[in-house]
Amino acid sequence: MRLAELSEHSGVSTATIKYYLREGLLQPGRRISATQAEYGDEHLRRLRLVRALIQLGKMPVATAREVIAAAEDDSLGHHRRLGAATQALSQGREVPADDDPATEAAGRTVNALLEHLGWRHDQEVAEHSPAYRTLVASVAALRRLGYPCGVAQLLPYGRLAAELAVTDLDLVEEEPTPTAQIEAAVALTVLYEPVLLSLRRMAHSEESARRFTGGGKPA
Amino acid sequence: MRLAELSEHSGVSTATIKYYLREGLLQPGRRISATQAEYGDEHLRRLRLVRALIQLGKMPVATAREVIAAAEDDSLGHHRRLGAATQALSQGREVPADDDPATEAAGRTVNALLEHLGWRHDQEVAEHSPAYRTLVASVAALRRLGYPCGVAQLLPYGRLAAELAVTDLDLVEEEPTPTAQIEAAVALTVLYEPVLLSLRRMAHSEESARRFTGGGKPA
Repeated sequence: MRLAELSEHSGVSTATIKYYLREGLLQPGRRISATQAEYGDEHLRRLRLVRALIQLGKMPVATAREVIAAAEDDSLGHHRRLGAATQALSQGREVPADDDPATEAAGRTVNALLEHLGWRHDQEVAEHSPAYRTLVASVAALRRLGYPCGVAQLLPYGRLAAELAVTDLDLVEEEPTPTAQIEAAVALTVLYEPVLLSLRRMAHSEESARRFTGGGKPA
Repeated sequence: MRLAELSEHSGVSTATIKYYLREGLLQPGRRISATQAEYGDEHLRRLRLVRALIQLGKMPVATAREVIAAAEDDSLGHHRRLGAATQALSQGREVPADDDPATEAAGRTVNALLEHLGWRHDQEVAEHSPAYRTLVASVAALRRLGYPCGVAQLLPYGRLAAELAVTDLDLVEEEPTPTAQIEAAVALTVLYEPVLLSLRRMAHSEESARRFTGGGKPA
């Protein structure tokens, strides 16, 4: 198909496709004349991945390029390839980390939590992961404001996160190819976040109604 | 205590305290001279609540004023008072709602989900809740991009949200007074969100390692 058709099938504008081509995020088409190139299904698939990384994952172009290179490097194991994508995801509401005693104490709490959960914990990898840093900074913020946030409070959250991860990875594994799995992992990680937060808030309201208005269902 | 001491004990600047006084979010102190007033523990408690609503909950001043009025209205039940606060919380990453077929279909999916979960579901209340609207818009966004998001995929999220709500409300109920409970409900709702999202991302990485690198712990 030509550029215009690629745009139509992918829902990505031709200007954006040209930008992805220039930045090396999309492989060039097969040149059929001085001004025209032919694109195939592999371009459509790549565009889905690029859209997931850049538009949903809000990754900088250079990071997306690395993730795509890892995705196509058959010498890397599948975990490394998926990990390259999901660990590069920044978190929208990242709490800035501090180098103060509260942050150090929070770091010890988080490490104790991971131990309790039995999660493999490579300190060096962890420190480069936005999720780990955000978790430590959030725990420190809760403590500074005087709210309870120790291993006892965090453990139920960690256990439920582990259950969700099983559900999520099952969905990812339904995708047919490694590239599609990486795309789905990024897209589902990001897109299910507002779902989870909304349901938690609705569940609060439901649980509050159960406790404080006498229990049962509305009449 | 004087204004300067109130600032020191609360960690809120005197300029911000004066702003809260002008906006009627903080009750006036007991006037002891033409230029000085005396503040007490009730002002400290109120400042904690205002900080939770405005700084953590990102509520507009007018909304915070309504929540505070509800918090102090003994004629309202506890659920209504807690609900006034938590339902007024906007969501950071609210997805704009559309009036298209995908949104209508998503609304039907969400209603079926709430039925399955056995959550009391007042359609009229729901439509005014930011959490409900965000959920519908997020489901519609997932569908438009071609990712699976039906009752089957949402149900595990809803069940886990319900379990978390029990844990969260237990924490809230440890607070001694209704006002402190409302403050804790807002603060914990907001501050535990990055904790939950970080743990989910770390759990993805953990689950991916288990599945794709042969299971066990690192050597």
